[in-house]
Amino acid sequence: VAWKGAPVISGDGWSFKPRGRLQFAGGHLSVPDAIDNEGRGWTTELRRARLGVEGKIRTNIGYKLEVDFADNEVEFADAYAYLSFGDAKVAIGNQNTGVSLEELTSSRYITFIERSALTDAFGLERRAGIRVDYAAGDVFLSGGVFANDLGSLIEDGDNQWSLAARAVYAPVLGKDTQLHIGASVQHTEFADEAQTVRYRQRPGIHSTDLRLVNTDRLEAASDTLYGAEAAVLSGPLHVAGEVMFANVDGLGAAPDAGFWGGYVEAGYFLSGGQRTYKDGTFGRPKVAESIATGGAGAWQIAARLDHIDLVDGSIDGGKQTAYQAALNWYADTYLRFFLNYNHLSIDGGPFAVAVDPVEGGYSADSVGVGMLVDF
Amino acid sequence: VAWKGAPVISGDGWSFKPRGRLQFAGGHLSVPDAIDNEGRGWTTELRRARLGVEGKIRTNIGYKLEVDFADNEVEFADAYAYLSFGDAKVAIGNQNTGVSLEELTSSRYITFIERSALTDAFGLERRAGIRVDYAAGDVFLSGGVFANDLGSLIEDGDNQWSLAARAVYAPVLGKDTQLHIGASVQHTEFADEAQTVRYRQRPGIHSTDLRLVNTDRLEAASDTLYGAEAAVLSGPLHVAGEVMFANVDGLGAAPDAGFWGGYVEAGYFLSGGQRTYKDGTFGRPKVAESIATGGAGAWQIAARLDHIDLVDGSIDGGKQTAYQAALNWYADTYLRFFLNYNHLSIDGGPFAVAVDPVEGGYSADSVGVGMLVDF
Amino acid sequence: VAWKGAPVISGDGWSFKPRGRLQFAGGHLSVPDAIDNEGRGWTTELRRARLGVEGKIRTNIGYKLEVDFADNEVEFADAYAYLSFGDAKVAIGNQNTGVSLEELTSSRYITFIERSALTDAFGLERRAGIRVDYAAGDVFLSGGVFANDLGSLIEDGDNQWSLAARAVYAPVLGKDTQLHIGASVQHTEFADEAQTVRYRQRPGIHSTDLRLVNTDRLEAASDTLYGAEAAVLSGPLHVAGEVMFANVDGLGAAPDAGFWGGYVEAGYFLSGGQRTYKDGTFGRPKVAESIATGGAGAWQIAARLDHIDLVDGSIDGGKQTAYQAALNWYADTYLRFFLNYNHLSIDGGPFAVAVDPVEGGYSADSVGVGMLVDF
Repeated sequence: VAWKGAPVISGDGWSFKPRGRLQFAGGHLSVPDAIDNEGRGWTTELRRARLGVEGKIRTNIGYKLEVDFADNEVEFADAYAYLSFGDAKVAIGNQNTGVSLEELTSSRYITFIERSALTDAFGLERRAGIRVDYAAGDVFLSGGVFANDLGSLIEDGDNQWSLAARAVYAPVLGKDTQLHIGASVQHTEFADEAQTVRYRQRPGIHSTDLRLVNTDRLEAASDTLYGAEAAVLSGPLHVAGEVMFANVDGLGAAPDAGFWGGYVEAGYFLSGGQRTYKDGTFGRPKVAESIATGGAGAWQIAARLDHIDLVDGSIDGGKQTAYQAALNWYADTYLRFFLNYNHLSIDGGPFAVAVDPVEGGYSADSVGVGMLVDF
Repeated sequence: VAWKGAPVISGDGWSFKPRGRLQFAGGHLSVPDAIDNEGRGWTTELRRARLGVEGKIRTNIGYKLEVDFADNEVEFADAYAYLSFGDAKVAIGNQNTGVSLEELTSSRYITFIERSALTDAFGLERRAGIRVDYAAGDVFLSGGVFANDLGSLIEDGDNQWSLAARAVYAPVLGKDTQLHIGASVQHTEFADEAQTVRYRQRPGIHSTDLRLVNTDRLEAASDTLYGAEAAVLSGPLHVAGEVMFANVDGLGAAPDAGFWGGYVEAGYFLSGGQRTYKDGTFGRPKVAESIATGGAGAWQIAARLDHIDLVDGSIDGGKQTAYQAALNWYADTYLRFFLNYNHLSIDGGPFAVAVDPVEGGYSADSVGVGMLVDF
Repeated sequence: VAWKGAPVISGDGWSFKPRGRLQFAGGHLSVPDAIDNEGRGWTTELRRARLGVEGKIRTNIGYKLEVDFADNEVEFADAYAYLSFGDAKVAIGNQNTGVSLEELTSSRYITFIERSALTDAFGLERRAGIRVDYAAGDVFLSGGVFANDLGSLIEDGDNQWSLAARAVYAPVLGKDTQLHIGASVQHTEFADEAQTVRYRQRPGIHSTDLRLVNTDRLEAASDTLYGAEAAVLSGPLHVAGEVMFANVDGLGAAPDAGFWGGYVEAGYFLSGGQRTYKDGTFGRPKVAESIATGGAGAWQIAARLDHIDLVDGSIDGGKQTAYQAALNWYADTYLRFFLNYNHLSIDGGPFAVAVDPVEGGYSADSVGVGMLVDF
């Protein structure tokens, strides 16, 4: 029996570990008075509450099954079985499609409370499918074919499918500088019954359901996402950035459209901590001294410029630029507290005419706090 | 690996234990014929079905996460992380607000199948918040600030908040007599969007959804609960009682109101058992001999007088007085069978006019049975 | 700590084991063009996704609690406590009513992706109740009384109840030939509030919700099921068959009706595997060599003739005859892949007039694939 937040019970080729995650978050959103919505002001939520297990039934056969019960609903996180063959791994089940550094980095290990705007706006999520990963030296490749998310698959008529692929080159430079360069593409054919898609994003906090940028439902046959990503990790410092383009194939007479998003962030541990990197994503940050052993935990500061552009031709979903600051306190390797501030500059979108009929632009501010324990 | 119903796996400062609880209950309700409702007669339910975990990630950092799936729905029980500092403990997450001896005593350890009327009637429940507990010698103090329950928090507009505090003095008298005296207060400001509150209670069994006392929705800005509690535990005997007053601050022109409830109960183990007391609440009853080892288990009898008064001024929610008898068979420390009989005297309330237009009073009877296994 | 897919932690008289099951399935259904339904063509689903625990709290007291989260909903599988007394076992809680060899064989151990038509068509399912099992030598007896399934019990008005019983004689012939002969009966009185029943079945795959045979809601006071079952298991070969009759007692002027279903199947392991038999049902197939240790796993072929007749008098639910073939690959004892082909011959039923107004018959075809991992 080893211990990684929860016990890892193992024997001859097999292992078993319970998994769990509990994240509470709250936030305050200030928007112009013309936006009359109950998502203004303070909102609180149980952001994630997961229970699950992972294990190996043989050296090279394993599984992961985790369910999220936040919002008093059932939603699957990873739920797959896998087979390993040398440097390759085939996973079947509900899983990430495998694109975007920030989407693939666990929500336990990202720097801000919420991921950058592009991940939600462009619908990155877990879907049921088959994904093949290949890791050799500094190169990580993945590719897969996917049906829709499990909630959508409940409908007989949901025949959406996607192809996704990603390539990463991640050499270690000098003594301990980790470089990361990657590119990805994901193509989705929407279900015959639906053939619509909606791109939108929340204002830096998730407890509110108010979105200041939102294309609303577009009639579309398919979309294709192109992403590029780069990061540097060196001791207490990390810098990371991504850009993603979404090309939408309008249905019939509906127009084609192109949107994009991107971010660049930098984070620095003031004391006793550093991010880690593993298999093409960021891993669990190291914390030198837990408060449990009389230490001060690890303190990290970070800043991010995060932009999403959902405007093209006659489609005015709006543009949101977020100037974000974060203060993280890792009280322990497995217990973390968050404080985020976001200044948002909005141009266009669903509320622009109501707020500023002339210029169509306005600003908003949000503050987020959170606590995360996992095991 | 130790064992407390389920294995407790522990190592250097950490521990992990799965948790579960399965309780089936059924009951029969006899009410006057004028109350035409499908909650009459026999009803059966899966009362509680919980799966979860608890653990420590360090000596003084831990968590508890438990989900109830009864009624095929997701509802969180305890879901929090905590930090201990000497005699104090800070818990963040979904938890009891910390008032009422009976509410704080686990449903596994209470004497009757259902708690006394005041706990449900006055809306005692778990809410998301921060609670600080302090225990030193015979004194237990707790205080906290809370948002609403997790189900209500799903709505952006839910900005209800509460403050709650409790003080307990619990000396051991003589050789083994545990005394308990406590007082508590809880103030709740209802959400701006709702500003209503409803006080009501079931007729001694939970499998029916018929309530004979019910104020229905009152327009209210806030309420304040004042509670007093006392108990004595000595060998196989326990006596306990509580009283709680609810002061409702009517919204605008709506009237203020005052309601109250209280109970006094006595229980006695006929053979081989006794209740326990820990940290300001009752703990797991001891069972001397499990049927698994050829014993007879432990048999307990109990009686309770339970009153709830939901009448004030123009508000006629009714008064319910329950004369209750219980027979408990603890087949094992972790397996228990229940039999309850309740005679109810109702005065006023939603059905009074239909049943007895002149006096507005009537009586009802219910019988409850149940089984509880936990680990 | 032993290992059976997941660790079995045990001590003095107690034990604890996590349980889980993850099954993805997809299928393609070809039906005549006149059946315009989105259940045609490809459909995909998370068929089962279960998490749970089982354990003993004493040598002769135990429990099982397992929840299925497929379709993002909560549905209980086994959820009961039990007591053993010598050769007898009493289980209280949600469980199989105890009829039908195929229904009682775990979905992990059946040969085809889906059970034979009679099990679903006649409403065999888990219900809340008390069941007594008796096993002595070659004889297995069970009997129980049950309320409805847990989902239905949520309604106060649901007072459905059932009695069920089954007897099995299962001698070992010669060196290693297991014989199985059984009979069962189940009587259900429908809830006063409902008093309807519907018999129907999917077309060999479960990912579609389209049913080609369906009586739709019949007004009925009760039904009684009579089943007979037989099986032979000898090394890599098994042959099994069942027949079940449903006698429906029509409500008031509604007609009585009689329906029936039956199947006969044969399966053969081409290499390194065989089914097992335990306590009146089939158990986990043995796999000689996992692919994890360089083996080829175990390959099994099977064929089944499966018939369901939902036609009687004026009730035309249709008749479905399925000619089924299966190819199973057990990559490991705990990881299995399925391929099924079903040719369906339909006579009558809800779509018969639309497809073939003259003869009322037509054929359909379905292909199913699946993956199952359990622990």
